[in-house]
Amino acid sequence: MATHCNPDRIAAAAAVDEARLWSRLVEFGEIGAIGGGGVCRLALSDEELAARRYIAGWAHSRGHRVFVDAVANLFVRREGTDPAAAPVITGSHIDTQPQGGRFDGAYGVIAGLEALAALDEAAVQTRRPIEVVAWTNEEGVRFTPGAMGSMVFSGALALSDIAGRRGSDGVPLSGALASALAATPQATFRQTVRPIAAYVEAHIEQGPELEAKGIPIGVVEGIQGVRWFDVDVVGSGAHAGTTPLARRRDAFQDALRIVNALNEWTSDPGDVLRFTVGHVEVTPNSRNTVPARARLGIDLRHPDAGVLREKGDRIAAIAAGAARHCEVCVREVFTKAPATFDRQVIDTIETAARLLRIPSLRMPSGAFHDALFLNDLCPTGMIFIPCERGISHDPAENITAAQAAAGARVLAATLVALAD
Amino acid sequence: MATHCNPDRIAAAAAVDEARLWSRLVEFGEIGAIGGGGVCRLALSDEELAARRYIAGWAHSRGHRVFVDAVANLFVRREGTDPAAAPVITGSHIDTQPQGGRFDGAYGVIAGLEALAALDEAAVQTRRPIEVVAWTNEEGVRFTPGAMGSMVFSGALALSDIAGRRGSDGVPLSGALASALAATPQATFRQTVRPIAAYVEAHIEQGPELEAKGIPIGVVEGIQGVRWFDVDVVGSGAHAGTTPLARRRDAFQDALRIVNALNEWTSDPGDVLRFTVGHVEVTPNSRNTVPARARLGIDLRHPDAGVLREKGDRIAAIAAGAARHCEVCVREVFTKAPATFDRQVIDTIETAARLLRIPSLRMPSGAFHDALFLNDLCPTGMIFIPCERGISHDPAENITAAQAAAGARVLAATLVALAD
Repeated sequence: MATHCNPDRIAAAAAVDEARLWSRLVEFGEIGAIGGGGVCRLALSDEELAARRYIAGWAHSRGHRVFVDAVANLFVRREGTDPAAAPVITGSHIDTQPQGGRFDGAYGVIAGLEALAALDEAAVQTRRPIEVVAWTNEEGVRFTPGAMGSMVFSGALALSDIAGRRGSDGVPLSGALASALAATPQATFRQTVRPIAAYVEAHIEQGPELEAKGIPIGVVEGIQGVRWFDVDVVGSGAHAGTTPLARRRDAFQDALRIVNALNEWTSDPGDVLRFTVGHVEVTPNSRNTVPARARLGIDLRHPDAGVLREKGDRIAAIAAGAARHCEVCVREVFTKAPATFDRQVIDTIETAARLLRIPSLRMPSGAFHDALFLNDLCPTGMIFIPCERGISHDPAENITAAQAAAGARVLAATLVALAD
Repeated sequence: MATHCNPDRIAAAAAVDEARLWSRLVEFGEIGAIGGGGVCRLALSDEELAARRYIAGWAHSRGHRVFVDAVANLFVRREGTDPAAAPVITGSHIDTQPQGGRFDGAYGVIAGLEALAALDEAAVQTRRPIEVVAWTNEEGVRFTPGAMGSMVFSGALALSDIAGRRGSDGVPLSGALASALAATPQATFRQTVRPIAAYVEAHIEQGPELEAKGIPIGVVEGIQGVRWFDVDVVGSGAHAGTTPLARRRDAFQDALRIVNALNEWTSDPGDVLRFTVGHVEVTPNSRNTVPARARLGIDLRHPDAGVLREKGDRIAAIAAGAARHCEVCVREVFTKAPATFDRQVIDTIETAARLLRIPSLRMPSGAFHDALFLNDLCPTGMIFIPCERGISHDPAENITAAQAAAGARVLAATLVALAD
C-alpha cells in the first residue's frame, strides 16, 4: 500500500495548515464547552448533534458528500479517481465524558477534515475514496455500551439487540438515533459499506510517554489486552467499640491483605503490566462499624496475551490465599485480548513520519479506541500525538497547535499512501 | 448507699417474672417490627411514638405518674416514702437503628418497668422515688446528635442550640418533639430535675465477652474513650490503561500504605485497643481510573486515657510518613475521654449480683450509652447482659428470656439498694 509517490505525500502534509487546524479545534471545543476549558458533549445529546451539524456543514461547503448509517455514524467522503474502490477511513468520535476535554476523540475527526482540506489544496488525487468518520457513542456514558458505533459498524454488535435500551436520562436509544439522523438532513442514509481498504485513527495518547520523551508521533502497534475482576470479600459487621480484633471478620482488612498480595504478584520492573484498583466499596461504610463486606474492582492490562493470561489466571487463588478471616469470591467480569494492528498500516504511518522528518515511536495503546473494533474488519492503525501530562477525561486535557499539526501531517501523508 | 436490708433486695429480685418480662420484650419489639426479627423505630417517628404510648399506658394502668421534659425524655415514677428525696433513675432508649434489633435500648427500659412491677409485687417500699426513663434519640439516625435526650438532660447540650435542626427526612426537630409530647397526654410536663441520687442503665453488652465466658452479668466500670479521625489522601486521577505505575499518584494505594502502617502502630497483644477503618471512600471510584482521592474514617478506642492519647496523637505523623506519592491530611473530628463510673454504684451492682448468686464480671463498655452523659451529672453505673454472638444494630440481635430476667433481677436489687 505504501507505494504512492513521495511528492504527493509530502505535498499533502505540507498543505496542513496549523493555524486553521487549531482554530477549528478551538471552535469545535466550544460546542458543549464547560468550565476550565472542558467539554460535556454526551453521545446524541443536543451538543453532540450541534457538533454533527458543524461537520456536515463543513463538508457541504467543501463539496464533499456526507453519509450516515443506522447507528448514526457520520461519514464525510472525498471521492477517489475510482469511486468503486474500497474506501480508506479515518476518524474517531465526537462525544465526550461529562467532565471531558476538547481533544479526546474530537482531535481525530478534526485532523481528518484538515487532511481532506490539505489534499484538496495540494490537488492530490487518490485512487480510493477517503472518508472521515465520527463514530457514535465511543464513551458509553449516556448509552451503553461504549464504542457502540464502531462495534455495530464492524459487526461486533447488532443494533437490533440494543435498540430498546434507554440512556441514563431515560431517553430511548432509538429516539436519540432518529434525532441524530434528522440533525444532518444533507447526509445520505447508507447501509454499512464493505469492504474497507484500511482504517487509521489519530488520537491523543492519553498517557505521558510521548511528552516525557519529547517525541511528536506515536506509531501504535496495537491495543493492550484487559481483564476486569470483581473481588467480593464477605466478613461480618460488628460494633467497632465492643468487638475485640481477634473476634472480627473485618472485610476491609482482608481486602487490604488481598491488595497487598496482588501488588506483589503484579509487580513488574519494566512497568508494562498495569494493575489498578480503581473501585472500592465498603459495606455498611460506617466509621464505627467493622466492615461486613468489601468489593474491589480490578483492571489488569498488558499488551502480551501470554502475560495477561498468566497474571490474570492466578488472581482468584492469590486473593483467596491472602484473606485471613473472610470468604472471597472473584469473578472475571470483562475481558478483551490484546489487539495487534496491521503491519502494513503500521509501516505506512512510520514511513510517512520518517519522510516528513518527524520523530516517531512505536508503542502500544493503553486505552481502548474505536480502532480496536475496526481492527477485526480491515487493516487498521493509529497515530498518537502527545498530550499535556498524559491527562485526559478531564477539562485539563491539553495539546499544542504544533502537536496537532504534526499529527495531521502524518495522517495526511498516510492517507495518501493508503488510498493509492 | 448499699445499706438497704438484704431481704428487700432479694424479695424484689425474686418477684421479677421471667415470662412476663419476655412477653413484654416481644410485644414491644412488634412496635416498628421489620423482617428478620428486627425493628426500625427511628427517634420521634410514628413507631417510636407508639412505643411511648405503650410505656405511658403501662404506667397509667399501674398507677404510676408519667413525666416528660422539653426534649421529650419520658419518665415513669414510682413514688418513694420521701417524695422530696432525689430520685434514682434507670432506663435507656427506645429508638433503634434503621435495621436495628429488639433489645438495644429497649431492654433497659422494659427491664426497668419489670423492676418497678417486681417492687410493687414484693411490696418493697424505698425512701427515694425510682424513675424509669426513655431517653430521646440515642441512636442519632434521624436527628443529630445521638444521645440527644441524655445530653440535654445532663446539660452537655442546650436544646435551644439544636431546635432549629431538621431530620434526615426534612422534618423539623421542634415539630417532632411537639408530636412526641402530644403522644402521651397523660404525662405531666416537667423541667429538668435536680439533684439525681443515682443513674443505673441495663443494656445488652453489644460485644461477645459475656457470652464467650458464660457470665450472665457485666458490672460496667466505665466507657472507653474514643477518637475519630478523617484521613484524606490526595493524589491524581489518571487513565488505568495508559499511566505507568511509576507515574501514578494513586490515592488508594497510598491509603493502603497508611492502613498497613497504622495496623502496626495500633497492634495490641492484649487486644484492648480498638482500631477500626469502617469508612472508605475512593474518588472517582471508577474501575479504569487511578484513584485521585481516598478518605479513611478511623475509630480508635481504649479505656485508658493515656494510651488513647499516645496512640491517637501519632496517627497524623504515621499516616503522612506512610504515604509515598500523595498529600495526606488528618483531622480529628470527634473525641470523648474515657468515663469512669461511680465506685459506689459499681459496688452496689456487684453486691446485688453476689447476693443473688449470679456470676458477674467487671468490664468496660466498648460502646457509648446515655450513661456516658449521666455520669457527668450523678453517680452512675451500668449492668450488661450477654447477647448472641455480640451482634447488635442488626435484626439478628438476640438474647434469651433467662438472660433478660437475670439482668432485671440484678437491676431490681440494685435499685432497692440505691433508693434507700
